[in-house]
Amino acid sequence: MSAAFTLGELATRLAAQLEGPEALRLTGLAPLESAGPEQLTFVKDVRHLALLARSRAGAVLCRPKDDVGGRPALRVANPRLAAARAVALFRPLPPVEAGRHPQCSVAPDARVPASCQVGPFAVVERGAVLGERVALGPHCVVGANAFVGDDTRLDARVVLYAGVTVGRRCHLHAGVVVGAPGFGYEQTREGPVGFPQHGTVVLGDDVRIGANSTVDRATFLATRLGDGTAIDNLVQVSHNVTVGPGVLICALAGIGGGAKLGRHSVVGPQGALAPEALLGEGTILGARGALASHQRLEAPGKIFMGDTPMPLEDWKRWQIVRLRSGRVRGAGPEVTPAPDPAPGG
Amino acid sequence: MSAAFTLGELATRLAAQLEGPEALRLTGLAPLESAGPEQLTFVKDVRHLALLARSRAGAVLCRPKDDVGGRPALRVANPRLAAARAVALFRPLPPVEAGRHPQCSVAPDARVPASCQVGPFAVVERGAVLGERVALGPHCVVGANAFVGDDTRLDARVVLYAGVTVGRRCHLHAGVVVGAPGFGYEQTREGPVGFPQHGTVVLGDDVRIGANSTVDRATFLATRLGDGTAIDNLVQVSHNVTVGPGVLICALAGIGGGAKLGRHSVVGPQGALAPEALLGEGTILGARGALASHQRLEAPGKIFMGDTPMPLEDWKRWQIVRLRSGRVRGAGPEVTPAPDPAPGG
Amino acid sequence: MSAAFTLGELATRLAAQLEGPEALRLTGLAPLESAGPEQLTFVKDVRHLALLARSRAGAVLCRPKDDVGGRPALRVANPRLAAARAVALFRPLPPVEAGRHPQCSVAPDARVPASCQVGPFAVVERGAVLGERVALGPHCVVGANAFVGDDTRLDARVVLYAGVTVGRRCHLHAGVVVGAPGFGYEQTREGPVGFPQHGTVVLGDDVRIGANSTVDRATFLATRLGDGTAIDNLVQVSHNVTVGPGVLICALAGIGGGAKLGRHSVVGPQGALAPEALLGEGTILGARGALASHQRLEAPGKIFMGDTPMPLEDWKRWQIVRLRSGRVRGAGPEVTPAPDPAPGG
Repeated sequence: MSAAFTLGELATRLAAQLEGPEALRLTGLAPLESAGPEQLTFVKDVRHLALLARSRAGAVLCRPKDDVGGRPALRVANPRLAAARAVALFRPLPPVEAGRHPQCSVAPDARVPASCQVGPFAVVERGAVLGERVALGPHCVVGANAFVGDDTRLDARVVLYAGVTVGRRCHLHAGVVVGAPGFGYEQTREGPVGFPQHGTVVLGDDVRIGANSTVDRATFLATRLGDGTAIDNLVQVSHNVTVGPGVLICALAGIGGGAKLGRHSVVGPQGALAPEALLGEGTILGARGALASHQRLEAPGKIFMGDTPMPLEDWKRWQIVRLRSGRVRGAGPEVTPAPDPAPGG
Repeated sequence: MSAAFTLGELATRLAAQLEGPEALRLTGLAPLESAGPEQLTFVKDVRHLALLARSRAGAVLCRPKDDVGGRPALRVANPRLAAARAVALFRPLPPVEAGRHPQCSVAPDARVPASCQVGPFAVVERGAVLGERVALGPHCVVGANAFVGDDTRLDARVVLYAGVTVGRRCHLHAGVVVGAPGFGYEQTREGPVGFPQHGTVVLGDDVRIGANSTVDRATFLATRLGDGTAIDNLVQVSHNVTVGPGVLICALAGIGGGAKLGRHSVVGPQGALAPEALLGEGTILGARGALASHQRLEAPGKIFMGDTPMPLEDWKRWQIVRLRSGRVRGAGPEVTPAPDPAPGG
Repeated sequence: MSAAFTLGELATRLAAQLEGPEALRLTGLAPLESAGPEQLTFVKDVRHLALLARSRAGAVLCRPKDDVGGRPALRVANPRLAAARAVALFRPLPPVEAGRHPQCSVAPDARVPASCQVGPFAVVERGAVLGERVALGPHCVVGANAFVGDDTRLDARVVLYAGVTVGRRCHLHAGVVVGAPGFGYEQTREGPVGFPQHGTVVLGDDVRIGANSTVDRATFLATRLGDGTAIDNLVQVSHNVTVGPGVLICALAGIGGGAKLGRHSVVGPQGALAPEALLGEGTILGARGALASHQRLEAPGKIFMGDTPMPLEDWKRWQIVRLRSGRVRGAGPEVTPAPDPAPGG
């Protein structure tokens, strides 16, 4: 499925400054190397800009002062973001194909509107309630009395345990598990004793969770992911965690029991919050950053790295100290600290 | 499902010292903030105790000398543990709903007693044997000739590969995979060569494995998890590993091939044992602690942190050295070492 | 299923130097401790060799100069590799059981040759194409227009998203997800904005992926895993990654967006490449090694350890510095650096 737009229409929709023929027809967006004359492209940085001359792209998303050699352009503050929005215009999500696959299993008292898509071998247990236009992929399980909001999509074999709540327009990728009992164990002389977990999980609207990630139910109340939060693959969110709206959590990160992530905070890949830690609003915990139990880190817009995390600038100096300490006898090839250790997709 | 008890009954069942009206009827347990007059609550520490005055709880689990202001009380050495046991009394696991879902697939020669629950689209392959009252959730797979003990519960889409053994009263959460071939690869000039993995996996009784965790089959013999061991989500247990009884392994930890974990040992979140490492009885490897290949660490009750792990006290000093080394030019906000870096749920 | 061979036949097939009776019949391979008179065993190192005298094994795979006390022997440069090959001879993979389970769901226009095995509750969506002798385990999903090459095996509940390509003789273990949308998010003042991911995934021939691992689709083009690459459990491979042929990636490692792994490189357990990093041909990133974003590390045959990785020798010295720094006041038991911190299975 794809749509076409004129350069003028795109300028309006992307709030961009138009430069070139308003009527130019564009059918998609592609990177510099592969874009053709009917396609829009985008430049992220100076390196990209240098490659633009050889691109066959019909038009370019660029920053206000970029020299694009007279090529038709849409000028915006952040071309990459505008490109993301342009792709969503050119290739909107296909509509849900309403209907139940003959080989699904829906409990008689579950509420599944006719506008929903229920894939092969999907299971909707008793008392579950789906909103309008919900899509359940093959082998999904919606547990007893769970709730799924309008326009939410579950890809293949997503499991929602009994009683959990998922908001509207969420997208959960294959293999996600929401609502398994949290890991409330304590080691004793007789071995581990587990605290039964009878709370639930509440996901806000527009939440996105990556493949095979897990979000555990709370002990008493609810584990919560705020609106617009996006989680990568193989991430663990433990019981009693509260994630603010618009948070990013990268792959293989682990969020310990009762931890709190403020609005628009970021956890890099393999990052960690130990139980009851707090990452403040807008604070960025870089790749492998870790907060210890009960630690609070609140510094909007700042990046922190490492166990017992340091500000990024400190961390860079520390890496040099570290590399020198090891190289006492000068063995081995030179390894230069990396130019940009910030987290990212 | 829930049950009610008198304060006197609870005192007996929890081996607690009774203080207050024996006949007081309680219907559940809740945290300080939300407990009502018919509910029991508990205090974990001094901070908690200060909040007790404002709680509406009918009675409290507390330590022998806590001042609870005359409120009905059950006094025990570890109120949190007693609370875990109380919840299990108030809300016992619901019984298995015996019967086979019409849309399951059970091999004619598999042994599935009438007391078992077989969920929709579950698969029991040839020669598999289930004990009494086993519950298989939707989309579970019990491979050929696998064995599952009495009263074990597999949540949605648990996969047991052919031939593995699971003990009694185990609980495997959604997405667990037991018995996939281990990763016995060696890099050579012609690329990776894999050692075929024809061993199996044996889980003891009362083993608990969290969502999407994986336990690989052994090369020749068996990967073993001892009785009462509890494993969190997204944990990898490699081939030939031996886990003693009553071990705790937290989320995203990886246990390398042939490693051994002694009785009642603990591996913190994102912890790691490299191949053939040994973590001794009762030894605690904190969050992100790692044992290198063939390393042995035996120190019952002691906590170790970091790669090439240090005792917790050393590690705390080391964090200060580290933070200072980075802050040569005094940039960035102050970051204080966390009060308690121990692992936990 | 198993086969028997004479010592002479094995010598030929394993390109080994024969020592002993050519006609000796052997029915399998087992480790030193459990091998019987009809079985082959192998010695990996000097420690192993010392145990050989007590083994009941009928013959032994050993190095050219090992003293095996006159026991029938097959001498090779790498006995462990030869043992891997011998096991594959004694116990070949069982053939695919051609046929479709009555409870599967195959789209009318999908191409599923009669030589394929389609397990219970497996789903093949419209336009998908399977090669000859493909085996789909229970609950597998082959998405619309996906392609699977000859002799590839998908264990239980593997998900291939729409349009992905899997080569010949691949083996994907239970729970693998190939082709979920990559995590192309950017944090903005309005919260995360995601770049739509319309690329695909292409797996070469003989690729092996462990249980519950995930390989994301590219933004525009293809995420690629080269021929003969082997990936362990719970590994994340992000969008736009290019993995050369014959690469090894161990459990819980994360490969960031656009990273490149050269031919025959190795990533240890819990290792990481940040976005756009490059690990050169034959270079070994040890357990928990990490390359930062855009970092390049090219040193064939060399092992690197740690964040901002150091050569192994430097890293060992660094661990001693680190342990001493923490032990200022001499607390705690002695912890010795491990003998061999290299990654492994």
